[in-house]
Amino acid sequence: MSRIEKRNQRAKSPNFAPAFVKRLIPPYQLLSEEGLQAIESRADEILQEVGIDYRGDDEVLQLFKQAGCDVKGERVRFARGLARQLCQTAPREFAWHSRHREKSVVIGGDNMVFAPVYGAPFVRNLQDGRRYGTLNDFENFVKLAYMAPAIHSSGGVVCEPCDIPVNKRHLRMVYSHIKYSDKPFMGIITARDRCVDSLQLARILYGAEFMDKNAVIMANVNANSPLMIDKVASQAALEYSRANQPIIIAPFILSGAMGPVSVAASVAQALAEAMSFIALTQIIRTGAPVLWGAFLSSMSLRSGAPTFGMPEPVLGHYVIGQLARRLGVPLRTGGCLTAAKLPDAQSAYESADSMHSTVLAGANFVLHSAGWLESGLVASYEKFVLDADRLGAYCKMSQGVAVDDNGLARGVYDEVPPAGHFLGCTHTMNNYETAFYESPLADIDSYEQWRDNGQTDTAARANQYYLKQLQQYTPPKLDPAIDEELLEYIHKTESAQPDAWY
Amino acid sequence: MSRIEKRNQRAKSPNFAPAFVKRLIPPYQLLSEEGLQAIESRADEILQEVGIDYRGDDEVLQLFKQAGCDVKGERVRFARGLARQLCQTAPREFAWHSRHREKSVVIGGDNMVFAPVYGAPFVRNLQDGRRYGTLNDFENFVKLAYMAPAIHSSGGVVCEPCDIPVNKRHLRMVYSHIKYSDKPFMGIITARDRCVDSLQLARILYGAEFMDKNAVIMANVNANSPLMIDKVASQAALEYSRANQPIIIAPFILSGAMGPVSVAASVAQALAEAMSFIALTQIIRTGAPVLWGAFLSSMSLRSGAPTFGMPEPVLGHYVIGQLARRLGVPLRTGGCLTAAKLPDAQSAYESADSMHSTVLAGANFVLHSAGWLESGLVASYEKFVLDADRLGAYCKMSQGVAVDDNGLARGVYDEVPPAGHFLGCTHTMNNYETAFYESPLADIDSYEQWRDNGQTDTAARANQYYLKQLQQYTPPKLDPAIDEELLEYIHKTESAQPDAWY
Repeated sequence: MSRIEKRNQRAKSPNFAPAFVKRLIPPYQLLSEEGLQAIESRADEILQEVGIDYRGDDEVLQLFKQAGCDVKGERVRFARGLARQLCQTAPREFAWHSRHREKSVVIGGDNMVFAPVYGAPFVRNLQDGRRYGTLNDFENFVKLAYMAPAIHSSGGVVCEPCDIPVNKRHLRMVYSHIKYSDKPFMGIITARDRCVDSLQLARILYGAEFMDKNAVIMANVNANSPLMIDKVASQAALEYSRANQPIIIAPFILSGAMGPVSVAASVAQALAEAMSFIALTQIIRTGAPVLWGAFLSSMSLRSGAPTFGMPEPVLGHYVIGQLARRLGVPLRTGGCLTAAKLPDAQSAYESADSMHSTVLAGANFVLHSAGWLESGLVASYEKFVLDADRLGAYCKMSQGVAVDDNGLARGVYDEVPPAGHFLGCTHTMNNYETAFYESPLADIDSYEQWRDNGQTDTAARANQYYLKQLQQYTPPKLDPAIDEELLEYIHKTESAQPDAWY
Repeated sequence: MSRIEKRNQRAKSPNFAPAFVKRLIPPYQLLSEEGLQAIESRADEILQEVGIDYRGDDEVLQLFKQAGCDVKGERVRFARGLARQLCQTAPREFAWHSRHREKSVVIGGDNMVFAPVYGAPFVRNLQDGRRYGTLNDFENFVKLAYMAPAIHSSGGVVCEPCDIPVNKRHLRMVYSHIKYSDKPFMGIITARDRCVDSLQLARILYGAEFMDKNAVIMANVNANSPLMIDKVASQAALEYSRANQPIIIAPFILSGAMGPVSVAASVAQALAEAMSFIALTQIIRTGAPVLWGAFLSSMSLRSGAPTFGMPEPVLGHYVIGQLARRLGVPLRTGGCLTAAKLPDAQSAYESADSMHSTVLAGANFVLHSAGWLESGLVASYEKFVLDADRLGAYCKMSQGVAVDDNGLARGVYDEVPPAGHFLGCTHTMNNYETAFYESPLADIDSYEQWRDNGQTDTAARANQYYLKQLQQYTPPKLDPAIDEELLEYIHKTESAQPDAWY
């Protein structure tokens, strides 16, 4: 890990694009110690007095009972402090490996890893508008993430490949991540056998021995908030945690619907739900890597429509970051989230407030950090590259302000007198290559240049940019023997069952 | 002041729209004590060793000499600590009055006041594109600011009224603020006689006695960075500070051009420039209200074009906020800034990152918080109302997270079981009116609704919104006798000089 960090810190580029980001700025401390304790105490109270339902999974209920929980029917209650205590064996940081050793990342601590949109059934681009996603779209998003310097993971379900049978998608998705990228990727969780297959494909790539000791494939499951976790999620834990692979437990709470309408209460509920599940992973395999994933947002209390990038979830991010550090478990939260239908001003205002707070909250892993549109229903090509551009800016921001002699420009006024300028002075020449983030998509031309170049808006520039990126794509190296073995496993598994479309 | 604050805190609305905002969240602490001291020490060093040029204003050079500064020619140097010491008589907080007592605001401390774009020669809307601003546009922006719940000040040069002679604009601008709004407004500084006229118009409105004791009209001047302050700025201080009216000294620094290319060094320079000027205001009149205005941004080191909303000025905001609190002088910084030409995704990404950091930095007064486009060259109607919407979200954010029994939703699970929902429960019903910020411009309809309603993008919705706002505008009350006296002064002053167009 320390080796990965050191190598990573050596990486240099004008836009600071290492394999992942080590934050050099402190997280924002929104709540006082007293406020944090009040929320933690409320979460303990929920776990002790109300409890969490684990439905349809006797194996898991049995495990909870053996660990000392109070299990009545499917309701699991924890004596005050027990859940938090069980969480303590989860690693605070762990390496998440790539087959390209320069692209392995560290999850936890002061580190940040950005990953694409996850789970959108639709895709959108300027030419074709909105339509169902296909495997070709899936591959395109994997390629775009591979080429984006500030996206550190290939992600998971970057869009739903709706042209592939439901029971076979997982094989094609995991294969696409391996084939078209070499950034760390995620596995599928929608059914137990798909977990097994995802893990098996990773095992072919990394070898069983390496994989038993190292994180190579990450899973993400949601709680069925409030206070219920279903069999799909608990069985994913049985598979991924037993295999020592990281799993994110992400309560998905629109406050007012799946959680109480106030920020503190929704966060307390999310914390309770997550602690119960993190405890489960540690019961399954002590020391298995796990993340608290907290996905909170607000809604319109008139229409029931979800809203994103609003001040309440922004505040939620900050509180969640503080609580995660106290729990000592790596955090997934936030993303470039929006309810907008198009990659327009609304989309960007909401995404930026959401993501600025995600970064300052100290999130360790950020799903949905590029491409998310329409409350997550759509993966947008244009928004993908626009968000990815802004992620570069957040990476730069996370490097903070240097106050050494160079940062303070000592001696600069020997060269530049009052009312002079700094354009060619020694200090500028020594620093200009890395001084400022350079956006590939922001237009900073003069008005006249911009007018003469066609008065493009940002979405149109993004459209041209992503099309060009896909043209320029070249795949990473993959050992042909491994490729063959992967395809063999996939074909064998696919031919053993008929297509299912729902 | 305490009366204003109390009255203000009583103000209630779903979107939290009092006359100004008292921040209940802490500012973000980016730099350590050590880092802050390094910058402060560098600023002291600049003031002592390099000094600041005050050009063309013997009266002011004389004042500096009398206050113990080392004045050689036009160069003013301060013994270490002298400038900071002179700044200490500036008030940490002061009331800035409106003629409508419910709309007076507090500048400084934990308070935030948002004001519109300032100084744009061009305006833009969807129908007409980009063109020079007129007095009619000026009045329109004053009206829109008057109607925007999260804009607390009418601002100053909301756009240049280019159809009015240069030497008479100031009269028409100040009159527009008084006639079409009753929110606190700014005066003009571009020549000494225009300062005098601005102050005289305010005196007609508020009375000479009240005005000598209370802030009613604010001025903003720029430094000619690096390290030079011209006669326009220093003479504005002579007029406004003598009249006990607030003045902002705003070094406008694009790092790499008017300041060193690194954030810390540009901030140190801005601090040095500002401290010298704040000291001057206190020499002119002890206790006169004054703000440190720090306007820093980055640039393209390829083309020299200014860039906004980038990570370097975002970091700058956070550092400046910390330094301002240590100096004990209210802070103007930030805004919804962008280099984009249209109110599109780039415009919003940049504006949001700029403004999010402005708020968390603890800015007290924010010029350019709505309508700024194209690096400040354009005042955009659509962006004005879009930014104003997001300002409402920042106001809500600034109210923080309640962790009392209601905030924690105690008892809620007696009503809502695991896997239930919170839509109609008592806690939701008790809180739904104020739980979430309601955006007037964000589209949160379902895809199908949005599609059937014309698939509008955000700029198109903003266009309709601002046109409707202007239709619905009704002016605030203004005593007809005062109105007459204002117009009499304006006509007399205008007829005493021929039109000047440059």
